[in-house]
Amino acid sequence: MSWTIKELGFQQEKIIHHGNQFLIGHLLLGVRGTLDEFRKDQLVAINLPFVYDQVGEGWREPVNAFNPLYTTLFVNHKEISLLTQDPTYHEQCLDMKHAVMSRKTIFSIDGVQLEWQSSRFVSINHERLMVTRTMIKTDQPMTLTIKTGIDQAIWDIHGPHLEHIQKGEMPYLSMLGTTHEKGYHIHVLKHVIPHQKMNTYLSFDEGVYQLFEITTQQNQTYIIDTISIIGVDQTIDELTSTLHESSEMGFDQLLKDHESAWEKKWEYADIKIKGDDNAERALRYSIYHLLLLSPNRKPKLSIPARGISGQTYKGAIFWDTEIFMLPFYLNTDPLSARHIIEYRIEGLQGAKEKAAYYGYQGAFYAWESQENGYDACTDYNVTDVFTHRKVRTYFKDKQIHISGDIVYAINRYIHHTQDYTILSDGALEIFLEVGRFYLDYGQHALLKDRFELKDVMGPDEYHERVHNNAFTNQLVHMVFETILHYESDYHRKNDPFFDDLVNRLHFHESLELIRHMVHKIYIQPIHPNGLIEQFDGYFMHRDIAKKELLDQKLHPHEYLGGAGLAGDTQIIKQADVITMLYLFKDRYDQHIIRKNWAYYEPRTEHGSSLSASMYALTSCMIGNPSYAYPLFMKSASIDLTGESKHYAGGVYIGGTHPAASGGAYMTAVYGFAGLNFTDHITLNPKLPPSFESLSFQIKYRKKQYKIDISQQDATIQEVLT
Amino acid sequence: MSWTIKELGFQQEKIIHHGNQFLIGHLLLGVRGTLDEFRKDQLVAINLPFVYDQVGEGWREPVNAFNPLYTTLFVNHKEISLLTQDPTYHEQCLDMKHAVMSRKTIFSIDGVQLEWQSSRFVSINHERLMVTRTMIKTDQPMTLTIKTGIDQAIWDIHGPHLEHIQKGEMPYLSMLGTTHEKGYHIHVLKHVIPHQKMNTYLSFDEGVYQLFEITTQQNQTYIIDTISIIGVDQTIDELTSTLHESSEMGFDQLLKDHESAWEKKWEYADIKIKGDDNAERALRYSIYHLLLLSPNRKPKLSIPARGISGQTYKGAIFWDTEIFMLPFYLNTDPLSARHIIEYRIEGLQGAKEKAAYYGYQGAFYAWESQENGYDACTDYNVTDVFTHRKVRTYFKDKQIHISGDIVYAINRYIHHTQDYTILSDGALEIFLEVGRFYLDYGQHALLKDRFELKDVMGPDEYHERVHNNAFTNQLVHMVFETILHYESDYHRKNDPFFDDLVNRLHFHESLELIRHMVHKIYIQPIHPNGLIEQFDGYFMHRDIAKKELLDQKLHPHEYLGGAGLAGDTQIIKQADVITMLYLFKDRYDQHIIRKNWAYYEPRTEHGSSLSASMYALTSCMIGNPSYAYPLFMKSASIDLTGESKHYAGGVYIGGTHPAASGGAYMTAVYGFAGLNFTDHITLNPKLPPSFESLSFQIKYRKKQYKIDISQQDATIQEVLT
Repeated sequence: MSWTIKELGFQQEKIIHHGNQFLIGHLLLGVRGTLDEFRKDQLVAINLPFVYDQVGEGWREPVNAFNPLYTTLFVNHKEISLLTQDPTYHEQCLDMKHAVMSRKTIFSIDGVQLEWQSSRFVSINHERLMVTRTMIKTDQPMTLTIKTGIDQAIWDIHGPHLEHIQKGEMPYLSMLGTTHEKGYHIHVLKHVIPHQKMNTYLSFDEGVYQLFEITTQQNQTYIIDTISIIGVDQTIDELTSTLHESSEMGFDQLLKDHESAWEKKWEYADIKIKGDDNAERALRYSIYHLLLLSPNRKPKLSIPARGISGQTYKGAIFWDTEIFMLPFYLNTDPLSARHIIEYRIEGLQGAKEKAAYYGYQGAFYAWESQENGYDACTDYNVTDVFTHRKVRTYFKDKQIHISGDIVYAINRYIHHTQDYTILSDGALEIFLEVGRFYLDYGQHALLKDRFELKDVMGPDEYHERVHNNAFTNQLVHMVFETILHYESDYHRKNDPFFDDLVNRLHFHESLELIRHMVHKIYIQPIHPNGLIEQFDGYFMHRDIAKKELLDQKLHPHEYLGGAGLAGDTQIIKQADVITMLYLFKDRYDQHIIRKNWAYYEPRTEHGSSLSASMYALTSCMIGNPSYAYPLFMKSASIDLTGESKHYAGGVYIGGTHPAASGGAYMTAVYGFAGLNFTDHITLNPKLPPSFESLSFQIKYRKKQYKIDISQQDATIQEVLT
Repeated sequence: MSWTIKELGFQQEKIIHHGNQFLIGHLLLGVRGTLDEFRKDQLVAINLPFVYDQVGEGWREPVNAFNPLYTTLFVNHKEISLLTQDPTYHEQCLDMKHAVMSRKTIFSIDGVQLEWQSSRFVSINHERLMVTRTMIKTDQPMTLTIKTGIDQAIWDIHGPHLEHIQKGEMPYLSMLGTTHEKGYHIHVLKHVIPHQKMNTYLSFDEGVYQLFEITTQQNQTYIIDTISIIGVDQTIDELTSTLHESSEMGFDQLLKDHESAWEKKWEYADIKIKGDDNAERALRYSIYHLLLLSPNRKPKLSIPARGISGQTYKGAIFWDTEIFMLPFYLNTDPLSARHIIEYRIEGLQGAKEKAAYYGYQGAFYAWESQENGYDACTDYNVTDVFTHRKVRTYFKDKQIHISGDIVYAINRYIHHTQDYTILSDGALEIFLEVGRFYLDYGQHALLKDRFELKDVMGPDEYHERVHNNAFTNQLVHMVFETILHYESDYHRKNDPFFDDLVNRLHFHESLELIRHMVHKIYIQPIHPNGLIEQFDGYFMHRDIAKKELLDQKLHPHEYLGGAGLAGDTQIIKQADVITMLYLFKDRYDQHIIRKNWAYYEPRTEHGSSLSASMYALTSCMIGNPSYAYPLFMKSASIDLTGESKHYAGGVYIGGTHPAASGGAYMTAVYGFAGLNFTDHITLNPKLPPSFESLSFQIKYRKKQYKIDISQQDATIQEVLT
């Protein structure tokens, strides 16, 4: 089965989508799949995740570096590129196995065929190194100019972020910029290596460029390689020395090393689906994105919600990582999984500050987490399309489930890896501080004698400031139980760590109250008809058909949540009760899941890319893989088709969707294969009819297993590594 | 000083305002101050307060009867009226002393001067009887037709409410309609009595009319009197017999009896201001409206927020009555005051049903109360001017202070009258059920160890769903204290009534919890700078200047609250903390009131007619009557000038403002005179510089007092009656 994603022909309106579709890089450097000659307006981004900057009142977002991949052609001083001329042939390819992007374009210029090929990769073996090869060939002699350099015309949503720009050309082309807020030095160096001797000169118009003039011979291929490095607060010596060494190795060796490293990444991660090439390809593409984003490059790394695809979603980490992506790394790369948890340990201080800001004790994690747990989320996340005013949203201050999501993820991590060291490395402190936060956020309703959490927002963000969200309250219950579980666990082991921590954090009173309240937390009851109400009063909301509601839209990008069209209806943005039922599946019978699935799915707009996979997973749980299949395909191919929401209330929210990729992975493994971990591994396969078989490997408690499922059979086999 | 309100000249654009300004009637029958020839488009209303009706999904509102005051003129088949022709002279007058409206209009028709005079009153001595006199005179002979009858072209906001219409003419002109919802029979009978012999015939086009053809003699006055009666579910015999008797008495006798009854009403109510005729006139006009609305006509009556001026505000009773109008009746007419309380006793069942609907125990009073405590408030009170969609508002479900306002009013009533019988007549049961409601609505915050009330709306309706509104929490505290006060009071008197009621209502657990929580209710603290935060987080809202905010309006009627412009700012609709400080003035030092006045007043849009008087009252308390004076004048003359808000988010909200009238009264008596009741009566005058003296009478604990205040002196003198 093919490892290649290929698009034939050129369409202006797909430029932005292809920038996501052909993304390459790794978690410290994202390179959008735009073409050599593209610039700012085509949303070129050499994205530097975790290098955040804020200009004025604009959103704080990761910086895009100057673009050292820029290359274009001129004939008679006229630019020849996809931006100026229709090609006679064009293809763009992604080699998923090796994370190499390439293009081939043929132009016809006064009867002469000009063929332009290039390929690029972001070396997985370097911190931030990019390598390209450009190949030019004509079928008749022709005089042309190749312009390649570091381009300053880069995409910036809330920039410009780089100031005090310095340009240089010795020993390499170079551009240095300083970030506005924190003054990071972003240094881009580019070594241009022509294979043939060519006339060359420099230009400094909108960047720094080298121009090569050649008069081609018929069908002779002219080659220029470039090797570029980006430094973030690194010395020039360090950068030039690495660039020098890499240049010595040359394109071919760098590519070879890069390819073999990528092949290793795939070794335990690939999933084979026999009988359904489309599904295999889409799932493989999802895994490709998860591998791009492996947070194994250094400790305390996590994954932004739009990955490395640009500045949308502020380059911030959401609950997406813990709930939708972590399972992939647990099964394939536990070190990455640990880093994801470590990121939140490092963010605890920020979470405590956020809680304190709102008048609460404990840890209220950032909804859009940047460094040190800083919450980049604003109070105004969308724009009213009618008045062009900013709309007050409540993602930041009311979506308190984020803290519980993290506790849930840590529990999963410990259960999966049995790495208990994480507890003393900070996880137990997270548990206590999150518990304390919930204890302080919620309240004891006296006549009802129950612990309630009012004024929250669940995963369904269309309904703001609700009371006793079923999902949130279950999480709070789980947090309280987790704390009490570890209390008795440490006591049982005669390990004083728990009590010492309680002392250090002055947690005695909270612990007593948690003990008192744990069984009083209000869990939304199961109604006689099997339904669970999403929050107090949800069933009293207007019950309007989804289509009828959407037909009432007066503007294609109008925001449906809050005071918008959906706010007072039962139409929800994404899986909410269903997400709760999936995460707490051990607590509910199958027929309850079935009833709620049937009720909530038609009322779900799936306005979030997180939604489809939860419905797909639960659909498998109730024995309905054919309901799951289209939802699985939707999750798996969201960045292949580009069929996702690009605007929310007038704000561009495009980019890749790694949580959907993670959700597709989860659906394959936990849904179709029915994988489940208790003390041992179980399978309860629900293969879609189109699947002949499904095969993959997982790591569980330090062992490697191979799992093979066919329509008839399912086996788990330990792999000795 | 004059008792007359007179407007000279005719202006089309003042028709609606004059309908309010020249209102006459009493609490069972409101007649807008429109002119004889006016119809539906001029917002004619013969309003039947408390006769509610709902058609389809429209708002439930009081019914307007067919209009028996309709009279117009024709010359040569052409209508001669203010709707067809500019007058050469026009005046409209209100005799406040007697609640008689009159008009005088002169038209010039082909050189002939036609003078049309009329006067009308709603007999205070009858249940629903209206009397008019029309006088016509020309300076040269002229042939004209006088058309008078019962007109069907009446104003209806959410009607038509009257169905199955029957018309008749024997023995009197008559129209009968049946209300849509409850089938009440609304019967209008009209007796037309010409003083001279005239040719007459009948017409049934848009009602039922009698036409009189006369050829006038020069300067001879032609007179037609009409006497009309309206029955609500009354027998035809009853109605014809009353109409017959009244006709026997005739216009002059009816008027004489009416006038002397009205003079009696004024006897203890009037306030004299020497030195400031404008202030006296405006205040007298306010008192006129309060006298129109005296709920002394039968038990269990209360006063709608727009009085008897039409269907706006659904003819419903708001907190306006208890907080802004009750003080006038306490001082002048304790029977009316008792009826206002009785109305809420009757509404207790509805309040308990409302609480239960929202999942709470106890009594949650209607925000817009119709009969039996039915809440006419909808979830959608305004319309978005940009999308024309209904906007979800939270007046009904979150403005929980209404229950506490009622308890506050009952406390005032008992303190003022010492009528303790009200307790066993139902008031004590209100206390307990309101206490139970608050106990269930609020919650115990465990770590903070305080009782909180989250998700409420204070008087400032621009800020929806806030936590720990300073005003609301003080009321809750007062309710809990009231219950515990009466517990010990009844125990002290060895009266088993309290304990019996606790038994009957199964109130033991609630009583225990109230005892436990009363001192834990979270009262917004006084910040070091003296300020009290309106609700949790208010000071974190954007602090924008009022003018700057209003300049951002894109539409003159756009709604500022909720998701509107003011929602995320510190701009408030009306006095909120300041209302709290006034109602609980014994708990705060003067300098705290001063600090908060200075902070909140510039941030108050005064978008409610209730706002100005609270600022005026507190302004007097801090020794600043000159700040108070313009606010007092604003309250007192709101229905004289018509300068009030006529639209809120696209919905017409015009009509009279009796709470502003009540607020003006309060400012005069409690503000300028500084009247205060403890065990005895005290005065702490703060006369504005323009006042030479201020004199009025009050009733207090069954005694009558005369109060005279000058700039030098203040006396209280018992009046032996």
